[in-house]
Amino acid sequence: MSGHAESGFELDPRLAADTAFVADWPLSRLLLMEDARFPWLILVPRRPRLSELDELRDAEQMLLLQEIHRAMALLRHVAPCDKINLGALGNVVRQLHVHVVARRVGDAAWPEPVWGKGAAVSYAADMRERRIDQLRNVPAPPLKPPLPMGG
Amino acid sequence: MSGHAESGFELDPRLAADTAFVADWPLSRLLLMEDARFPWLILVPRRPRLSELDELRDAEQMLLLQEIHRAMALLRHVAPCDKINLGALGNVVRQLHVHVVARRVGDAAWPEPVWGKGAAVSYAADMRERRIDQLRNVPAPPLKPPLPMGG
Repeated sequence: MSGHAESGFELDPRLAADTAFVADWPLSRLLLMEDARFPWLILVPRRPRLSELDELRDAEQMLLLQEIHRAMALLRHVAPCDKINLGALGNVVRQLHVHVVARRVGDAAWPEPVWGKGAAVSYAADMRERRIDQLRNVPAPPLKPPLPMGG
Repeated sequence: MSGHAESGFELDPRLAADTAFVADWPLSRLLLMEDARFPWLILVPRRPRLSELDELRDAEQMLLLQEIHRAMALLRHVAPCDKINLGALGNVVRQLHVHVVARRVGDAAWPEPVWGKGAAVSYAADMRERRIDQLRNVPAPPLKPPLPMGG
């Protein structure tokens, strides 16, 4: 829920309302979705006026790809996980954001996607803090340096 | 619906049943989803036994990223489009596949995701062929050579 601008970046207020701040990674803000039914992270590249993946510069897309991997690895560390769902939709909130969701067979939406399935269940305050602490303290592999895609 | 194996790759039969073959790109098989309600492409990396994005080698992930861009560009050429939805779910069909869907404000599922929303509407045969021809004949920018991500 950190609201500072970075080169004109401001988190969409609907994303801010539905999430808790976890960390600022080199490209993206890492958010925890406020829905205790699913271990659910959201990456928001801290660049202004983006809505589609291919509006990011090549090197930033590669960085985003690495941050998606890192988010996948974090989720696997903090929660049991049968499948990871990735999505970049943006029909309601246009600001480019990537969902990274740990799914379990038999979870509250299984095997459907999580979006629009039932009402979100808020975290109890201590559970939210514990989850955020876990996420911040997983030893993540260092990100590789961004390289241009060539050409 | 081409079924030839490539280094052990075989298209999941459920994906084959729900789609029409469009093309084999350097990494992925490009499929048209058999649902005339949405211009909807699916990319399936032609590698065996993949279910998660981070199981692809780095260079192949970059190639997939470029092929996602190319699919986005194709959709924008052949159909009006307000937003592109990207998703890699795999809860039902585990074989790694990426959905690239052109959305319009007011379309049959707007603003919800397309997955699991109502029944698919088959293309009339001539419309399917016309759409596939369009997709095959859009002058696409050449793919850039894959480079390792560094590190």
